[in-house]
Amino acid sequence: MSDLKQAALDYHEFPRPGKLATEVTKPTATARDLALAYSPGVAEPVREIAKDAENAYRYTGKGNLVAVISDGTAILGLGNLGPLASKPVMEGKCLLFKRFAGIDGVDIEVNAESPQAFIDTVARIADTWGGINLEDIKAPECFEIERALIEKCSIPVFHDDQHGTAIVTAAGMLNALELQGKTIAEAKIVCLGAGAAAVACMKLLVSCGAKLENIYMLDRKGVIHSERDDLNQYKAMFATVTDKRTMDDAIAGADVFVGLSGPDLLSPAQLKAMAPNPIVFACSNPDPEIKPELAHSVRDDVIMATGRSDYPNQVNNVLGFPFIFRGALDVRATRINEEMKLAAVNALKDLAREEVPQDVLAAYGLQSLSFGKEYIIPKPMDSRLLGVVAGAVAKAAVDTGVARLPFPENYPLNSVADVK
Amino acid sequence: MSDLKQAALDYHEFPRPGKLATEVTKPTATARDLALAYSPGVAEPVREIAKDAENAYRYTGKGNLVAVISDGTAILGLGNLGPLASKPVMEGKCLLFKRFAGIDGVDIEVNAESPQAFIDTVARIADTWGGINLEDIKAPECFEIERALIEKCSIPVFHDDQHGTAIVTAAGMLNALELQGKTIAEAKIVCLGAGAAAVACMKLLVSCGAKLENIYMLDRKGVIHSERDDLNQYKAMFATVTDKRTMDDAIAGADVFVGLSGPDLLSPAQLKAMAPNPIVFACSNPDPEIKPELAHSVRDDVIMATGRSDYPNQVNNVLGFPFIFRGALDVRATRINEEMKLAAVNALKDLAREEVPQDVLAAYGLQSLSFGKEYIIPKPMDSRLLGVVAGAVAKAAVDTGVARLPFPENYPLNSVADVK
Repeated sequence: MSDLKQAALDYHEFPRPGKLATEVTKPTATARDLALAYSPGVAEPVREIAKDAENAYRYTGKGNLVAVISDGTAILGLGNLGPLASKPVMEGKCLLFKRFAGIDGVDIEVNAESPQAFIDTVARIADTWGGINLEDIKAPECFEIERALIEKCSIPVFHDDQHGTAIVTAAGMLNALELQGKTIAEAKIVCLGAGAAAVACMKLLVSCGAKLENIYMLDRKGVIHSERDDLNQYKAMFATVTDKRTMDDAIAGADVFVGLSGPDLLSPAQLKAMAPNPIVFACSNPDPEIKPELAHSVRDDVIMATGRSDYPNQVNNVLGFPFIFRGALDVRATRINEEMKLAAVNALKDLAREEVPQDVLAAYGLQSLSFGKEYIIPKPMDSRLLGVVAGAVAKAAVDTGVARLPFPENYPLNSVADVK
Repeated sequence: MSDLKQAALDYHEFPRPGKLATEVTKPTATARDLALAYSPGVAEPVREIAKDAENAYRYTGKGNLVAVISDGTAILGLGNLGPLASKPVMEGKCLLFKRFAGIDGVDIEVNAESPQAFIDTVARIADTWGGINLEDIKAPECFEIERALIEKCSIPVFHDDQHGTAIVTAAGMLNALELQGKTIAEAKIVCLGAGAAAVACMKLLVSCGAKLENIYMLDRKGVIHSERDDLNQYKAMFATVTDKRTMDDAIAGADVFVGLSGPDLLSPAQLKAMAPNPIVFACSNPDPEIKPELAHSVRDDVIMATGRSDYPNQVNNVLGFPFIFRGALDVRATRINEEMKLAAVNALKDLAREEVPQDVLAAYGLQSLSFGKEYIIPKPMDSRLLGVVAGAVAKAAVDTGVARLPFPENYPLNSVADVK
């Protein structure tokens, strides 16, 4: 890890600080070029946009531009380190947007004294972009911030820590349930953690068919139940009528464990207490709630996923956000609705069941990979993701009436080179 | 012009909308690359910046990143068309930053209900960048906005419509005065227009040695004099004790006319009424206060400058802002102070007196060009600008104690390829 640490610092520092630059995409060699790009020629697109705001999509980069915005209050698993410290993460997200979906990203770090100040700030500059990816904002403020911005903005606003995580988790979960011979409607689910990702994951699993009464969510004080009086409205949504109070109470007989909490919080004894053929998503990063080696040594009927790339079944947000925004931008969706999220879930779920092409195997140095306990989630380097996820999201947007353009003629996209 | 209009629209629309993209500057081919760029490796620069904010310059793009920010209240000469309509101009400015100084620019369009809302918004996101270029914000609000942001931000904030215009105007003016055998201390100056650029130009000319009592500024109501009770504090700075009331009153015997107003507002009779060897900067764009052909037909002892590229002596902001920010960024200046502006003035003034290299002549299809009535301001395509202007600005920043780095080792820059 120390080697990785230095390599990461070097990567960011040399030969030039950072990971991004602004690229000029039009000619600038001659005085004539500059007269078109700036004064006097630029007056023409200005006038056209003043006449009709939609022309901003025709004459500026808006339609392919997403802002990655944070206040740095919940950076990765590191906590509240402030807006400036979040900049490498936001720039990293922009890098992933470009690498995986050809989307131009700009990072914005907001130093806001209150959630309302954050909302006001972002709302006032939102028209600059075609979409907004909120990132690393702590709960419960993130819920109110996202809700308010969705309401105020006419472009998609998407808090990736919530919905990106939820979408990839749900896709893997549906596949794991299928392999374990369980139905989501009957699955008893324990969610350790009650932050942004946990709340969003459980909400999306409910959208996928899970029953609220089958879900036990736990925060630092234990099971979230109907007699607690210390719950914010987001946790309260998951308060069940139950006499279970502890993790031990909740985990006994559970089919599914979803960990979005911290290292080593699922003990071998607790894993043993789960129902036959259990499913464990231990997504604390970098150290999972239970290490896969340990889990498999305790019982061999478990399906495991983690947040790490060095184990099978990585729950990695990069499987979602680049393609979800790609699909949303390409049909000029006004928002990313539940149907679009479910379309992404199903596209990811189905892709893992397809035969894996040679180039994907090669990217991971694998001889073979097929749908099963160690492959329930597609791999990030799978170039089919762009086509299937963006396509599913775009179609759902069109079908649900939030798209302002028809389904794109250039779909399915085969690579970022196909992006219009 | 109709041909230019369509060409400008086509330039902005094809093959892809806009003029800018986000470029990824680090490797992203392998899973290892991505582990350095994003999770888990990105945690390292995050931690380093949390420890010391200055490390943002080491591990992110901040140090080479300038935001071009507008509210669209005074777009070019087109007026208040709103923030979104200003986007092509702001993207154009980013293009010029990159083309001329290797600076990464991002545009931000702010939809603010008041100057205070604009200030609050920009102040909260300012740490994202290494500098802020304010643009196309109407007077008098622009003065208060710039003042407040300079106070709130620890990075340079520069309203180019004021200071960029003023710097290039002052450089040309000093050369014109020299050629006409006049001193700035004695020159009688008429400034037609009292907006952002006019106020900034006159202030900078005063910094260069002009006497306040020799300046007559005119707004729509005529000469700004000490008995008027309708003046904002910015115009009031130029209220002179005089019985002159009209343009005709003011222009009689004037040495210098600076027009930052509108087309054809300096008549041939008024030009005739000026002192011998007059200087006329007719900067209204695209139609100057008096056309150069007309001016030269009226009297042959006049030196003229305009805002247009198709006449000699173009007052073009691109001669200033890219290099001023380059110099400021490279010494990590906390602000752009008066000394740095004057350094830019002098660098531009002196460069016009140097022999013009072949590549500059070739760029303009000229056989020769030498300091004189038709060449008092350097040409935008002159690649020496980067070295001399950025160098002068950086040196002034160091000399006046606003630089947080020493004078750069890689100076003078020969081209944007030299940018660190």
